[in-house]
Amino acid sequence: MSAVNIIEVAPRDGFQSVVPLIPVEAKLAMIDTLADSGLKSIEVGAFVHPKAIAQMADIEQVLTGIEHSTTLKPEYERVVLVPNERGALNAAQAPCDRLNFVFSVSETHNLKNVRKTLEQSLAELELVHKVVEANPQLSLRVSLATSFDCPFEGTVDEALCLQILQLAIKRAPCAQIALCDTTGKAHPFAVERLFDKALSITPSSTPIVFHCHDTYGLGIANVAAAYRSGARHFDSAVAGFGGCPFAPGASGNVATEDVVYFFESAGIDTGVDVSKLNRAICLAEQIEGAQLGGSIRQLNRHQL
Amino acid sequence: MSAVNIIEVAPRDGFQSVVPLIPVEAKLAMIDTLADSGLKSIEVGAFVHPKAIAQMADIEQVLTGIEHSTTLKPEYERVVLVPNERGALNAAQAPCDRLNFVFSVSETHNLKNVRKTLEQSLAELELVHKVVEANPQLSLRVSLATSFDCPFEGTVDEALCLQILQLAIKRAPCAQIALCDTTGKAHPFAVERLFDKALSITPSSTPIVFHCHDTYGLGIANVAAAYRSGARHFDSAVAGFGGCPFAPGASGNVATEDVVYFFESAGIDTGVDVSKLNRAICLAEQIEGAQLGGSIRQLNRHQL
Repeated sequence: MSAVNIIEVAPRDGFQSVVPLIPVEAKLAMIDTLADSGLKSIEVGAFVHPKAIAQMADIEQVLTGIEHSTTLKPEYERVVLVPNERGALNAAQAPCDRLNFVFSVSETHNLKNVRKTLEQSLAELELVHKVVEANPQLSLRVSLATSFDCPFEGTVDEALCLQILQLAIKRAPCAQIALCDTTGKAHPFAVERLFDKALSITPSSTPIVFHCHDTYGLGIANVAAAYRSGARHFDSAVAGFGGCPFAPGASGNVATEDVVYFFESAGIDTGVDVSKLNRAICLAEQIEGAQLGGSIRQLNRHQL
Repeated sequence: MSAVNIIEVAPRDGFQSVVPLIPVEAKLAMIDTLADSGLKSIEVGAFVHPKAIAQMADIEQVLTGIEHSTTLKPEYERVVLVPNERGALNAAQAPCDRLNFVFSVSETHNLKNVRKTLEQSLAELELVHKVVEANPQLSLRVSLATSFDCPFEGTVDEALCLQILQLAIKRAPCAQIALCDTTGKAHPFAVERLFDKALSITPSSTPIVFHCHDTYGLGIANVAAAYRSGARHFDSAVAGFGGCPFAPGASGNVATEDVVYFFESAGIDTGVDVSKLNRAICLAEQIEGAQLGGSIRQLNRHQL
């Protein structure tokens, strides 16, 4: 067991911003390469309506491809995003391990993003949780988008976020829960404060994940702050894959290689081999329409 | 008084890596623009031998230009680097406010960089201090390079760094002292630890500055860590100006606009107007041979 758990999200949160359709083979090559670097949890796609995100329409082929590329069960957790019960039911028929149900702490963002009130999303979570309970091969994750800042409402009230966190735990007691800095506007002191409180009110059996974007260059500072508070689960995307819908071309998710470099430089084992991640970075750079970021990647480029 | 003091170093630590000579007018335009953004301390050049750093050979013209561009004394502190007593004596004849004497905690780096042993550098510091004492218009700063990591020796012993810090204070009791992460390899937990100890053993009358490089993307995380420990003085370079001699093309000093964005987003007043900094970023981008970095700058570029 490594000291921290890094959850790779490029094949879902990264790829979904790419307009040209990425061939299934390219997705599988990326996922294989990420897995080979030692990542133990990879979000490989989403069961969403193709009209909503065309890039995710091939999720069943991706999952089948993963299944066929290994003779044994993959050694990493295959995470898939599901926006609702229907997505969960579809995912339950496919070879995957964990469902990621997303909704927003900010009601305005939730209405715009998933067209539901918070109450409706919490009700949907109960339905998704039932699907997971009925399918013992599945685990659940709940991602609370806009846990810190909302593009419409601004700074999100800490007490509201903690309240939604508790309601989510109540409806899905065994789920992993992610607090997401969707806009990248959280600052390290806010991250530390929220994680201090969140970890103090959640049972130790509930892993709390920090999902952050590096849009304003605070990604690693925020990861360090969350770690300091006791967080041990971190989302990241290789090559800073992701973009940001509110700042076209800007860096997206905090880069996996930056997170790994940071932890390893501080003597904290991630279980990930940075040199193998370089191969995934090269693959990311070959993807047409990719919006990339990250510090280590740019350093590598200059050093080559 | 702002809550933190940001010391701009691009016109010295940034410009010195640029090979094509930057015209004096371009340097003055940059310095004026930086001052106009609210920065209260700007390192404007160095009194070094032109054979060592040709880019700094125009320091007297730069200082005269600053003097002539304002009818009153400039409202910011004009800092100049001096490598030795001779540089200090030259600076004492010129219109400037603070001398920055640099040597390295790591003996190997010091020998390679300034061709002195630590003992010789401490002796030189005494001579520079005497020049400052004899010239009441001058203040002193001592920069301890490789306070965390040395390109030749690796991780620098914390106890050695604290010992050198104390010896420096003894020889220059009124000086501002900078702990410098020269290679960018310090991690936030090491920064916090060193600043905790450094601030606990120094008199409150001795300002301790954090000077860091963003080479590996840890710049802002390290600034946040130093602030957390009580540091209130930070070096930075607009547009991440600086490069790194050991990784050509890589980002150099932590970017002023990133540091300002970070503090202001956390509600900590810097006294610097980010929108005015954008003009300095544009000037930086026009300088031939400039090696730039920074997150906010890249975001701005995409948003334009």
